[in-house]
Order: sequence, then structure tokens, then C-alpha cells
Amino acid sequence: MTTNTAAPAPDKLTAKGKATRARILEHAAELIYTKGVHATNNEQLRRAAGVSGSQLNHYFPSKESLVLAVIAWQAERVLTFHRSERFACFDSLDAFRAWADFYVGYERAYQEGCTLGSLASEIIKTDLDVHDELASVFDQWRVIFRDGIARMQQLGRISPEADPTRLANLLLAAFQGGMLLAQVARDIAPLKDALRSAIDYVQTFARSPDPGVLQAR
Amino acid sequence: MTTNTAAPAPDKLTAKGKATRARILEHAAELIYTKGVHATNNEQLRRAAGVSGSQLNHYFPSKESLVLAVIAWQAERVLTFHRSERFACFDSLDAFRAWADFYVGYERAYQEGCTLGSLASEIIKTDLDVHDELASVFDQWRVIFRDGIARMQQLGRISPEADPTRLANLLLAAFQGGMLLAQVARDIAPLKDALRSAIDYVQTFARSPDPGVLQAR
Repeated sequence: MTTNTAAPAPDKLTAKGKATRARILEHAAELIYTKGVHATNNEQLRRAAGVSGSQLNHYFPSKESLVLAVIAWQAERVLTFHRSERFACFDSLDAFRAWADFYVGYERAYQEGCTLGSLASEIIKTDLDVHDELASVFDQWRVIFRDGIARMQQLGRISPEADPTRLANLLLAAFQGGMLLAQVARDIAPLKDALRSAIDYVQTFARSPDPGVLQAR
Repeated sequence: MTTNTAAPAPDKLTAKGKATRARILEHAAELIYTKGVHATNNEQLRRAAGVSGSQLNHYFPSKESLVLAVIAWQAERVLTFHRSERFACFDSLDAFRAWADFYVGYERAYQEGCTLGSLASEIIKTDLDVHDELASVFDQWRVIFRDGIARMQQLGRISPEADPTRLANLLLAAFQGGMLLAQVARDIAPLKDALRSAIDYVQTFARSPDPGVLQAR
């Protein structure tokens, strides 16, 4: 992973190629998560994924290209989940409460933590040139919350005085920090407290819906 | 660092011994921070700290003993700072705002992140037997905030309806998560938003002080 030629675009690969690439990625994500970016090397990854050195080099010609693909893979999972219908674009307090309940009720949550947050805390300490991509993922996540809160304002559900970006940053920070504290304590309580308090704060901006706005829907 | 005999207690060391131990610790903290627990080995640490293998083994006979000492060293710095007079045991909203302003105004904050949070996110993924010590540090940190909020209740500054532990978890999570988001974004805004919103939420429980309580002080 020292050469720096471009990796083949995933959508140009054959079905077999895609499967091999996905297998490498899955093991890379696992190794990076458990051992860290620095301690993950070609040899371990080759053995774990059961691929040859030339195969590995074909799909991921550099460590950057591998780490970028792991970021993209985990981002896809997290963002798709947050954009799923169950949360209705976060246009109500109920949606935010359902989201908090999911993580608080998910028994592996505090064992696993947030895979993306965990990867981020690894990567920000390295000199790999992947910071922009990582920042972009967290921006997209923040925008999901921010747009949901802005939509709640349009619907008259919360006051125009609320600052959607500021609240989105609180919610995302409560999630990331709460997950870390829950992992450290081996107890879900810190995550539960942080998420519910953050949502309760959003609720302090709640208004009775404007009947005119409701009719217009 | 494979033998498991006890490390000498720091207070039993000579002045020279204490200095050597401190030098090893400082370099170990730096290596663990930049390279991760897994990738930090005896050889790198010996070279960085300029000590012999037998010296290293004398002060830190196992990786556990070294990591425990790094946790204790960083915990001491963080807890002492939070217990300093400038924050008056966090018995007012002003104290919490001064605390937030310190980190928001500290230019290296989002470059460095929280050394303890960063170390924690490393360690929770390892199988080192240091989880209890790490959890204890975060407990102590949480208790500083919780006791401050409970004291604010006793002083009639905030409502008895506020839950001090829950608010302490929000504040600590907003700090840890906000720090991670600021590092990822290379921008202090997420930390600023998260901390100020968390404190604004505490303020929603604020009351005019009870004159009786004030007289009794």
C-alpha cells in the first residue's frame, strides 16, 4: 500500500470483483477498529480477508485509498439509516425520540460504540490525507438533523428562535460523547441521559402547531 | 513489558527516579496518543524517552502498568483543572460558561482534542485490564459537574426538578462529542454549539435565588 495509483471505481468491477473488494473492506474496517489505523498492515489484512498481495494492491493501491473506502462504507451505513423512513427526515420531536430509543435500546450499542466516531477519533490523529472526506460525512449527518429541525420550524412545531445548526451540533455531540461515555462506563445510562436531555432541550422550543400550517400540508 | 510484577509506587522513588518515571510517562502518553496503544512498543518508548530496557521495565513492568500510569497522569491534569478555584466547584451557570469559554477560546483545543477522551477511545477497544480505572476517572469528572448542579439546587439557583446526574452526563457528553466533531471539522464551532446549548439547557431550570437561602449562607 505504498504506490499511489488510483483504485478501480467500485461500479466498474465485475460481481466477483465487487465481492472481493467488499470482503477486504469489511476486514479492514474490523482491523482498523480493533487495532487502529497505524497497527493495521497489509499482511494482517491479506490473511484476514484471504486475498493475495496483488489482489489487495489492485483494489486498494495505497493506505489512503483503503481508509477512504472504509470511511465511505461506514458513512453509507450510518447515513442510510438516518435517512430511512422510520425517522421521517426528523421533522418531529417524536422522530428524535425514536432515534434516541433505538440506540438506548440496542444492546450492542455501548459495546460497539459509533463505528464512524471511533474511526474518526483514530484518523484525526494520523497524517493520512482523508480529513476532508471524514469531515464531509459528519457534515452530511449534521445536515440531516439541521434540516429536520428547520422543517419543524416551517411546520410551526418549534419556535423560529431555535438555531437548527446549533441544535444539530448538540444532538450529534451528545450522541458521539454519550456513546464514548457509555463504552467507558459499560453502561448505557450516559448515552441515555445525554440524548434525552439534548432532545428535551429541543423541546423547550416547542410550540403548539399553527392550524394554518397544518391545513396547508 | 511482559512480566507482571508490581511497579514501584511513585511516592517511594528518589527525586531522580521520579524524574525518570515522569519522562517515560510523558513520552508514553505522546506515543499512545499519536500511534495508538497497540502500535506503541517498548523499543519506540525507550528511544523517545532515552532510557534503557531495564529502566523501562523497572518503572513499568507491564503494558498495563504503563497504560494505568498514563491514565492516572492525564486524569490528574484534567481533574485538577476542573477542581481549580476558577470554576468555584461549578456552583453557578457563570462557572459553567467560564468553563465552556475556556475550551472554546483555547486555540489548540480542537487540534489536541481531549487527551483523556482520546485515550479512552483507544483503550476501550483493547483487552488491557484498565477499564475500571478509566471508568473511575470519568466518574470523578461527572461527579464534579453533578455536585455543582446539586449545590446550585441547594442555593435555590436551579429548580429541584433538575436531575443533576442527567445534566452532568449531558455536559460531559457535549464536551467529549463536541471535541471530536471540532477535531474532525477543524473548526471550533461544533464544540461551541454543543457546550453552549448544553449549558442553555441547564439554564432552563434556573430560578431567581430564594432570599432565605441567600441569607443562610
